[in-house]
Amino acid sequence: MSKINVIEGGICAVEGVRAAGSREGKYGLAVIESKDSAASAVFTSNKVVAAPIIHTKEMIKGGKISLVVVNSGNANCFTGQDGIDDCDKTIEFASIITGIPSTEIATASTGVIGRKMPMDIILPLVEESISKLEHSAESSTDAAKSIMTTDTYHKEFAVETEIDGEKVSIGGITKGVGMIAPNMGTMLCFLATDAVISSEMINKALKSAVNRSFNMIVVDGDQSTNDTAILMANGKSGVEVAKNGEINEDFQNALDFICISLAKMMARDGEGATKFIECKVNGAKDENDAILASKSVISSSLVKSAIFGGDPNWGRIVAAVGYSGCEMNQEMISVSLNSDDGKEAILVDKGKILAFEGTDELNSAEEIMQEKTVNIVVDLYQGDASATAWGCDLTYDYVKINAEYTT
Amino acid sequence: MSKINVIEGGICAVEGVRAAGSREGKYGLAVIESKDSAASAVFTSNKVVAAPIIHTKEMIKGGKISLVVVNSGNANCFTGQDGIDDCDKTIEFASIITGIPSTEIATASTGVIGRKMPMDIILPLVEESISKLEHSAESSTDAAKSIMTTDTYHKEFAVETEIDGEKVSIGGITKGVGMIAPNMGTMLCFLATDAVISSEMINKALKSAVNRSFNMIVVDGDQSTNDTAILMANGKSGVEVAKNGEINEDFQNALDFICISLAKMMARDGEGATKFIECKVNGAKDENDAILASKSVISSSLVKSAIFGGDPNWGRIVAAVGYSGCEMNQEMISVSLNSDDGKEAILVDKGKILAFEGTDELNSAEEIMQEKTVNIVVDLYQGDASATAWGCDLTYDYVKINAEYTT
Repeated sequence: MSKINVIEGGICAVEGVRAAGSREGKYGLAVIESKDSAASAVFTSNKVVAAPIIHTKEMIKGGKISLVVVNSGNANCFTGQDGIDDCDKTIEFASIITGIPSTEIATASTGVIGRKMPMDIILPLVEESISKLEHSAESSTDAAKSIMTTDTYHKEFAVETEIDGEKVSIGGITKGVGMIAPNMGTMLCFLATDAVISSEMINKALKSAVNRSFNMIVVDGDQSTNDTAILMANGKSGVEVAKNGEINEDFQNALDFICISLAKMMARDGEGATKFIECKVNGAKDENDAILASKSVISSSLVKSAIFGGDPNWGRIVAAVGYSGCEMNQEMISVSLNSDDGKEAILVDKGKILAFEGTDELNSAEEIMQEKTVNIVVDLYQGDASATAWGCDLTYDYVKINAEYTT
Repeated sequence: MSKINVIEGGICAVEGVRAAGSREGKYGLAVIESKDSAASAVFTSNKVVAAPIIHTKEMIKGGKISLVVVNSGNANCFTGQDGIDDCDKTIEFASIITGIPSTEIATASTGVIGRKMPMDIILPLVEESISKLEHSAESSTDAAKSIMTTDTYHKEFAVETEIDGEKVSIGGITKGVGMIAPNMGTMLCFLATDAVISSEMINKALKSAVNRSFNMIVVDGDQSTNDTAILMANGKSGVEVAKNGEINEDFQNALDFICISLAKMMARDGEGATKFIECKVNGAKDENDAILASKSVISSSLVKSAIFGGDPNWGRIVAAVGYSGCEMNQEMISVSLNSDDGKEAILVDKGKILAFEGTDELNSAEEIMQEKTVNIVVDLYQGDASATAWGCDLTYDYVKINAEYTT
């Protein structure tokens, strides 16, 4: 397996990619240019979808993207024909300024549902961002910042790997953070690579990466109307990463790695989060069971509240596994906690409770619960399959943020 | 349809039923006696189950209950063979004191998972409660109080109806309130009736009532290891309520009514709740779709937080319907709010938003959001099926209660 190097520059770490971002009040606008890219996109499975999703779902059938225009502050969802018209106007406007055919312009939105797009603010922001397009680390950061909503920090990442001795890079920006749920909550993710890959194969690569990353994070279990992940490949490296219908393993690993890294950033920045939670389930009967169990633990309001309170309440973890639908036997389950600095506490070992009051195990568990990152490991002893899900604690601030959002 | 009268007396409103409750510190113990009753029980579908559930699942196969022994403060779950032994000891002890065969004694527990039962406290409480058994409204209240955990008030209810001109009564006690979820969260419910009904038919009647009541409330989506609902019929009224394999409709209606009333009490007392939410979905393609949609709205952390904040954020309601899995068309959905005192606000009418800033509809919606009860009505225009689900808002106190539970 090739080494994956983390590099600077976000989405602009990739040759041939230019980005920019601008903001006015609560509205932000990012543009990302990666000319003549083979492209794929994954969308929310919510039956209520925003106008930009209707647009991008259609245009992506051409398999090609040169420009992405993204706004924050208004979701352009549940806005009827007006919303579709506003979406079209935005794209036409960007097309006229850049000279890029409108059929190669993708779009995405995030923000409040059911309000008409403030086109008098959006169009000037489109013009401003396009005028600032640049191939630089700063412009990637500007783009990442301009799509933030309740995110507390911007999110960008880039990696480089070697394929047959030649360098290939992948960069991306993303935003979270409420409504992050199985099958993609309100998240936008834009990825670019300089690899050479066909529209068909890039689709396969993106789906696979999304299933291991964005589909494994949960903030609140709600699912947005606007989720979009786009991957563009402009081929500038000249390195082919799919041959004979097979995706190069090193490329897929690098793509998985960047998507998982971005997904973890999102979970860590879940609305109101004070702690990051990882739950790895081992020994599941099959992968589906491992996914069910790990997501169930990460989604449990009781587990999330307990972790916020620093309470190593393994009973809630076991209960969440129990109702997940996975095959399990309560007399053959192990649960342990560990921290990033090497502390470990075995709470339950093959059905036997070790973390009683006064034991070292419980003391260690309580110490781990004070860390910023809490790793939960569950072993089911039903088979060989594993899965890892990521999330965050449930806090007063989650409630506060979401009780006050539109007001 | 016969009239259903609400009567006093809780579970002791039913002839031949005696109850009692006692408490020591955080432990409580209730006993309910209804001799020689045909009985049925419904349990959690969690694969991790408590010792009392293992016991009661087995004994209920005999179809007969004379006594129920319930403790709060310790779930006797994940306690291995010790837990089974403690359960057996409790039942043997109750059998010796009362003279009731142990095969006719059901049991249930609620509380912390994974701690050994404090038998030195539990057995004296069993003795005390049995010595206090009485057929009185006060003893029903005592029993209801002794099974409370984080409940803020005790829950009991009783109804009377006429079947073929003769009176039949049903009474019950219950406790909620965390982990209340689809398919029964931590809830215990004990019901008694003086109707004459076979073990087989009582099973059918209870399942039907549970599906329309306890399975339609959601507090946090977690699912307990200990949920139990028991219905006992002692036949004291002499009125047969099932003939030729059919349950009398008036009896089923009365049973549904008491179960829905108790379920709503639980949702209203959801952990940390400040508001009670009802969501009725009309016009669904079929009943399953109506259930999916109504539960999805009631379960949404974003909807729940918005209601806590008094924010009529219909976009979150529509989004929750959208990801519920039901058939829907965003251009043909209506959403309205109403209050128990007759206020109404149509937020969305067949896909058209009516509640814009400055409109009367939005003002009325904001007023309704200030009420203690918020009723949401969704119409899908896909068919004729309806369902109603109940829940509560997500508040700072939910987080507080669950962050501090075991400590």
